[in-house]
Amino acid sequence: MAGKPIIKVAALCGSLRKGSYNRGLLRSAIEISKESIDGMQIEYVEVSHLPMINTDLEVDGKYPSAVEEFRQKILRADSVFFASPEYNYSVSPVLKNAIDWASRPPNVWAGKAAAVVSAGGDLGGGRAQYHLRQSGVYLDLHFINKPELMVRAFQPPAKFDQEGNLIDPQVKENLKKVLLALHDFSLRLVGRA
Amino acid sequence: MAGKPIIKVAALCGSLRKGSYNRGLLRSAIEISKESIDGMQIEYVEVSHLPMINTDLEVDGKYPSAVEEFRQKILRADSVFFASPEYNYSVSPVLKNAIDWASRPPNVWAGKAAAVVSAGGDLGGGRAQYHLRQSGVYLDLHFINKPELMVRAFQPPAKFDQEGNLIDPQVKENLKKVLLALHDFSLRLVGRA
Amino acid sequence: MAGKPIIKVAALCGSLRKGSYNRGLLRSAIEISKESIDGMQIEYVEVSHLPMINTDLEVDGKYPSAVEEFRQKILRADSVFFASPEYNYSVSPVLKNAIDWASRPPNVWAGKAAAVVSAGGDLGGGRAQYHLRQSGVYLDLHFINKPELMVRAFQPPAKFDQEGNLIDPQVKENLKKVLLALHDFSLRLVGRA
Amino acid sequence: MAGKPIIKVAALCGSLRKGSYNRGLLRSAIEISKESIDGMQIEYVEVSHLPMINTDLEVDGKYPSAVEEFRQKILRADSVFFASPEYNYSVSPVLKNAIDWASRPPNVWAGKAAAVVSAGGDLGGGRAQYHLRQSGVYLDLHFINKPELMVRAFQPPAKFDQEGNLIDPQVKENLKKVLLALHDFSLRLVGRA
Repeated sequence: MAGKPIIKVAALCGSLRKGSYNRGLLRSAIEISKESIDGMQIEYVEVSHLPMINTDLEVDGKYPSAVEEFRQKILRADSVFFASPEYNYSVSPVLKNAIDWASRPPNVWAGKAAAVVSAGGDLGGGRAQYHLRQSGVYLDLHFINKPELMVRAFQPPAKFDQEGNLIDPQVKENLKKVLLALHDFSLRLVGRA
Repeated sequence: MAGKPIIKVAALCGSLRKGSYNRGLLRSAIEISKESIDGMQIEYVEVSHLPMINTDLEVDGKYPSAVEEFRQKILRADSVFFASPEYNYSVSPVLKNAIDWASRPPNVWAGKAAAVVSAGGDLGGGRAQYHLRQSGVYLDLHFINKPELMVRAFQPPAKFDQEGNLIDPQVKENLKKVLLALHDFSLRLVGRA
Repeated sequence: MAGKPIIKVAALCGSLRKGSYNRGLLRSAIEISKESIDGMQIEYVEVSHLPMINTDLEVDGKYPSAVEEFRQKILRADSVFFASPEYNYSVSPVLKNAIDWASRPPNVWAGKAAAVVSAGGDLGGGRAQYHLRQSGVYLDLHFINKPELMVRAFQPPAKFDQEGNLIDPQVKENLKKVLLALHDFSLRLVGRA
Repeated sequence: MAGKPIIKVAALCGSLRKGSYNRGLLRSAIEISKESIDGMQIEYVEVSHLPMINTDLEVDGKYPSAVEEFRQKILRADSVFFASPEYNYSVSPVLKNAIDWASRPPNVWAGKAAAVVSAGGDLGGGRAQYHLRQSGVYLDLHFINKPELMVRAFQPPAKFDQEGNLIDPQVKENLKKVLLALHDFSLRLVGRA
């Protein structure tokens, strides 16, 4: 009795802020997957401790140990989930730094399915999502197209509580749809749909 | 005897690599301005030591001291010159990090003229330039439109020497044109053209 | 008694729909400028009759007569105002077609100040605005950075009436701010601020 | 005896010029697929006769007949191949117009695999490719990531002859790799890889 194959998802957050709404989206995604998505395991992957990228730090073909461990976690995942804030109409440096380290040869993102969600001001982080998608072309990530989730965090009613936990039921529902689409697309890409 | 007003330019490099070609472009820009552009002072502004952006580090309305000093240097400049590598089809995290810190209130980029050049692979860093220009909308930077300089660093003949110094006379000529356009646009924006 | 110099603005709409909200924004902009902006004349420039761009239609260095007349109108303007719908996350073909014809040598957009506003779904047309801004680099248009106006046309309360006329006082106020910023930036670029 | 499934590809060209290099790329792609790619049928789909998009032309839920026929051709295809020139750093209006008509409900692009190639100046049309990819998110097109083909048409040696036929063997080889990647990705998306 085989059962459905399990899709392992590496989840990255582009904000270092403790109360970050994007971190809240990520926590909620993990909860939702545990409670109600069969065959999907989301693992939070820490990126805050990575050194700022500098290829001079690569010695004898080796990456700094924190980088190497991070790369192994990405490598083991079937697909990737990004919670990406928008800073100055683009991706945050902490997320870009993680992306860049894992792209160093051999590029450990290659061939994986991916999804991105964001919370932010006016456009809900949308501009960062399109920049990230462009990076995805080089990284060889296959982003799902739909649904897109861009949460306007400052529009009433409150979407997040004081600790940055997602509390809005409609956004949770939309977040679940993103995860299901990522699950489905991951299965198609690994040939098991 | 008034003479021409002097335009002060803050110059930032998006690579930490010692032999970086983009750093080479920046060094060359400084030399060119000294040798042959009247009324333009380019100051190299270090960004490698800035902490990764995290607004939790802002305490009592104060930025970390390294950030504060950096912000003052940007504030004092009339305009900005970016040497921006392209990492995974977008801006490098070290440059984005500097940009993001200086955008925190009050945004010290606001209203300045700007130019960006890049050296890189196939498209010479071009994709990073357009992402940076989009950030410029929020930062309220006024980028010059022309000329654009995207140096295909790996196409023969060699454009840079072993230490990353720009050695190609044609690229130097094009770099000078970028600087002159930045000079001219800066003067127009400060109302002294 | 000279008085303020008058800034002539060419205004283009990217939608052919009769009841287009973007056309409504443009009509409102013209009204606002007449009623309350001293020294700014906005002229609506029709683009619906231009042939689809095909440089094979350029014979003996001449453009089709409709194109030639259109180009003259752009040439005479000091600056440009775009009301740009977002079609499939980018600029509409009717607007792009007008832009492309006027860019043929000599590029009649060169050096002008510009602003873009949009009305649309979720992001209010924002994605089209950033694509248009990228075209502006080649066209040598100097877009104002702020304020940006992206009208979420389908969010209550109604922003437009049945004929596509802008009826929302807050959006009108924001539109006026865009026009004032365009006026100011145009004056700076022509050296009369 | 099933044999390999056949992937039907709709091929669109974004230039109306007779001697267009992008049209040359498209012709070459058709030849290559016939000669050396088993299980791939590329059909050239004409878009030059479509009216400029205007949803006022949709009457009683019907599209103009030329539009309807065009939409049927897209609908019947498994995947899509774009030869896209770059006009003013973005997509050409003739291609965008075809895209926009076929996106009207029901969106006939949805779920298909896609590839884009371009020939052009300095960046070989690259900027248009990224704008097209962004449209692909809304269209629900799944673009292959690699390889990318951006032909610098004006760099010696000549890549095209006087009639716009692709004559460069290396570019032909690269074009074939794009087609093979599209074939492979199409098979994966239809679940037959």
